Amino acid sequence: MGVSSPKPLPSLKDIAMTAPKTRRSGGRAARQALRAAPLADDIRPIRAGLEGGRYNPLSQLQMEEIHEAALTAMEEIGFADAPPSGVDILTRAGAILGKDDRIRIPRSLVTEMLKKAAKDITLCARSANFDLYLTGNRVHYGTAGAAVHVVDVNANAYRESTVQDLYDAAKIVNTLDNIHFFQRPMVCRDIADNLEMDLNTIYASCAGTNKHVGISISEPDFVPTCFDLIHQIAGGEAAWRARPFISTSICFVIPPMKFATEACQTMEACIRQGMPVLLLSAGQAGATAPASLAGAIVQAVAECLAGMVYVNALKPGHPAIFGTWPFVSDLRTGAMSGGSGEQALLTAGCAQMHRFYGLPGGSAAGIADAKMPDMQAGYEQAHSNVMAGLSGLNMVYEAAGMHASLLGFCLESLIIGDDLLGQSLRCVRGIEVTKASLSLDTMREVCLEGPGHYLGSNQTLDLMQTDYVYPRLGDRSSPKEWQENHKPNLLTRATALKEEILSKPTRAAFSPATDAKIRAGFNIHLPRQVA
Amino acid sequence: MGVSSPKPLPSLKDIAMTAPKTRRSGGRAARQALRAAPLADDIRPIRAGLEGGRYNPLSQLQMEEIHEAALTAMEEIGFADAPPSGVDILTRAGAILGKDDRIRIPRSLVTEMLKKAAKDITLCARSANFDLYLTGNRVHYGTAGAAVHVVDVNANAYRESTVQDLYDAAKIVNTLDNIHFFQRPMVCRDIADNLEMDLNTIYASCAGTNKHVGISISEPDFVPTCFDLIHQIAGGEAAWRARPFISTSICFVIPPMKFATEACQTMEACIRQGMPVLLLSAGQAGATAPASLAGAIVQAVAECLAGMVYVNALKPGHPAIFGTWPFVSDLRTGAMSGGSGEQALLTAGCAQMHRFYGLPGGSAAGIADAKMPDMQAGYEQAHSNVMAGLSGLNMVYEAAGMHASLLGFCLESLIIGDDLLGQSLRCVRGIEVTKASLSLDTMREVCLEGPGHYLGSNQTLDLMQTDYVYPRLGDRSSPKEWQENHKPNLLTRATALKEEILSKPTRAAFSPATDAKIRAGFNIHLPRQVA
Repeated sequence: MGVSSPKPLPSLKDIAMTAPKTRRSGGRAARQALRAAPLADDIRPIRAGLEGGRYNPLSQLQMEEIHEAALTAMEEIGFADAPPSGVDILTRAGAILGKDDRIRIPRSLVTEMLKKAAKDITLCARSANFDLYLTGNRVHYGTAGAAVHVVDVNANAYRESTVQDLYDAAKIVNTLDNIHFFQRPMVCRDIADNLEMDLNTIYASCAGTNKHVGISISEPDFVPTCFDLIHQIAGGEAAWRARPFISTSICFVIPPMKFATEACQTMEACIRQGMPVLLLSAGQAGATAPASLAGAIVQAVAECLAGMVYVNALKPGHPAIFGTWPFVSDLRTGAMSGGSGEQALLTAGCAQMHRFYGLPGGSAAGIADAKMPDMQAGYEQAHSNVMAGLSGLNMVYEAAGMHASLLGFCLESLIIGDDLLGQSLRCVRGIEVTKASLSLDTMREVCLEGPGHYLGSNQTLDLMQTDYVYPRLGDRSSPKEWQENHKPNLLTRATALKEEILSKPTRAAFSPATDAKIRAGFNIHLPRQVA
Repeated sequence: MGVSSPKPLPSLKDIAMTAPKTRRSGGRAARQALRAAPLADDIRPIRAGLEGGRYNPLSQLQMEEIHEAALTAMEEIGFADAPPSGVDILTRAGAILGKDDRIRIPRSLVTEMLKKAAKDITLCARSANFDLYLTGNRVHYGTAGAAVHVVDVNANAYRESTVQDLYDAAKIVNTLDNIHFFQRPMVCRDIADNLEMDLNTIYASCAGTNKHVGISISEPDFVPTCFDLIHQIAGGEAAWRARPFISTSICFVIPPMKFATEACQTMEACIRQGMPVLLLSAGQAGATAPASLAGAIVQAVAECLAGMVYVNALKPGHPAIFGTWPFVSDLRTGAMSGGSGEQALLTAGCAQMHRFYGLPGGSAAGIADAKMPDMQAGYEQAHSNVMAGLSGLNMVYEAAGMHASLLGFCLESLIIGDDLLGQSLRCVRGIEVTKASLSLDTMREVCLEGPGHYLGSNQTLDLMQTDYVYPRLGDRSSPKEWQENHKPNLLTRATALKEEILSKPTRAAFSPATDAKIRAGFNIHLPRQVA
């Protein structure tokens, strides 16, 4: 076809420098000075909490059918294996314990609890500017886990992940604009004791980032000790309860349709401690959930509605994230495939169901099956991340760094992922249509009076910073420039940026006094960081 | 968070082999036999022409505002540089030639011509099973150009593209399920004479693939000779006119708002020869189109509506593709950025405008700015390809293989792109909601009577082939398997597959008699292929 090769155009900077003085030049100079300054948050082209929702894989009728099927499953199939405390909480509220020991939840109870459930919640961060406000179609991207390996890009190898890797990941996330929260992506495989692992996970995550942190707690008995640490980090229990900056994932169900007994007990304990909970249903279509995409959503919705009833029967209005996370099986092997189109659809469909209920929701996107941050990883992560954002998912978990279908986490990929998510967020922001953006006046000026191009027009200069997203590592040079620049390699550059970030102290670091106190009370594995 | 690492699950194949006989086992055996056979086209999980349209970046009101602004631009700004024949055609139809030599098109004329314009068109292919039916939200992915380099992955270098590269690309596309048409992606830089280049482009493309081919013709004077060749390939003019299997891109405007004089003359000649035309408006936001996304769409729509009026004033109902291809500038440099989120939005917004008019439309997606098929390339190509598909774009041009913001084409990337587009297409297909897919019966069986998992359920076995898309090169192994398989490298595997495809003859090859006749009449640069 006949698109000619892009011609070299004068750079905007050159044009702005040499633009003739016009009646607007004072204004332009002022604007140029303004452009040199960092943008205020509210006019940056992208930011946390942009509104998605323009992509709707399901029609209203289809959502109602899924809702109805989920209610029927709750009423007729019910849930096995609730702990005694859960049986008590749920049956007092109106659920029915069957002779088969399954708890069945009448639809009227679901309706009642939906009224009590928290609709708009704030996930606090230690630094308030990182608070996440979950409502409507507001989109936030972040990490999640729990990988057991870290990907060593330079050795082309996988190795077991450690608490140092976790801390490094947190430090990196703290510097990345487009990753809005840090759910612990990796398991500290170098810490054998589970309580110590939980405590060190909390320590390393919070020491690395003051964005919102997500954790999990392995056993109900560990909850008090974990909160001892959390209160110390917060500066006391009252400060913690005023601004809880950590949420916990609770795999409260083992799909299909069974409560996870111990996790439910952990959940009850965390709720009493004032911690927001992610009600996580992580079925796998074709293995632990129906192979049909609609069926996998039905089951996830039924399970999370049961969790929502449980939470609100215990503590009405407690902040909870509706965590329908149906995964996908590669049906040839039964293994998980997080990078598939089916996965992207499941996640987007779930996001719509969250909005259907008006509940803050989270699901998984951005998982690569690829072992390394290669082209496969790029397309796998982009498909699901952009669809999650466009569908208005509040919390996009697993959005960066995740490889090997959740088994490996890669720091270079995390950094490249920040660029990727920048473009996803630009897509979420969408197309503004206003009198000014329709541009008739600009077109008239350029075509009828002006130079015949838009390079130096005021509109172009104005939108340059507010409407366009520029990648940090992504290379947009021409082949000629690329050659002259010694063919920059994406992974090499990501490694260099990683090392630069890790060589500097993090703003999230605890004060020396707090750190000393924590280290006196707990067995902290992470070496004291030299700032 | 607490998602445990995926456990190894028994493979479906094993389960199917060892499943106990049930009352359904006869049916299951029959189904298994069926599954071993290739799927009929209509039940394959993905195919050309799947219906998109679930993603709508613009509201109805916003589309109307864009439409109104475009009409105003046509009426008030108009278009410079029409050739005398075009002035004649357009003014006879009711357009007005101003004293400034700009042609202004009243909105009533647009409305009138929209009624005459072809709404549903078939782009034929030499092999009828590759015909493309453009209507509604049906989505087709294909290549386009015109790169001047081919990317040599193994040398990490760019070199000038040749007619052999073009032929190789066509041969490869002929074998790739998810690339539905072949618009010539590369310029034959080894052929200095423009007419010879055009002829050899036609020859190499058609000799390599019997999918629909897109070309361009450099000068109006070349049209008769090009059609001599095309008629020979078709087996005569009547056969050509009955099933025109080549379309031509016409860059009929030089944005902003100027007709491309010669290209318009070429267009007129091609229309008289019965060739479908792609009316291509390739502005660049911030350079040759407004920097605001809405404004860039307004201008592209105005320009393509002018082309639509031109075509239908000349030959009512002639098949034409509404080719709004606004590109994006990186406003720091003015250079093109095809891999940006802004690009993905422009393309999706244009797709909606095509539907607004009910016209078959095409736009560009899948362009990487990355120089090599790396993670950046993967996410750049995926963002725009999946959004183009979800928005229901009929013809997604540039969808695979394209790097360096259109300057380089890569055969390995083309092959990996087939996998990428397979996942995009899966997303386009969406989520079916039916009584069966809601899966209540399957859930009941599994949870209340069955094994507690879905691996061996009839639903899973049934959906395995019809609902799930498996990548050809994409690796879904676990880290352990990956290590045992000697860490397969995506690019190495793509190169191997490329060499395998190129080592075999293509089904599209001309008969020896036809080939000899063509070679007797034209200076064909491509060596005779040894089958």
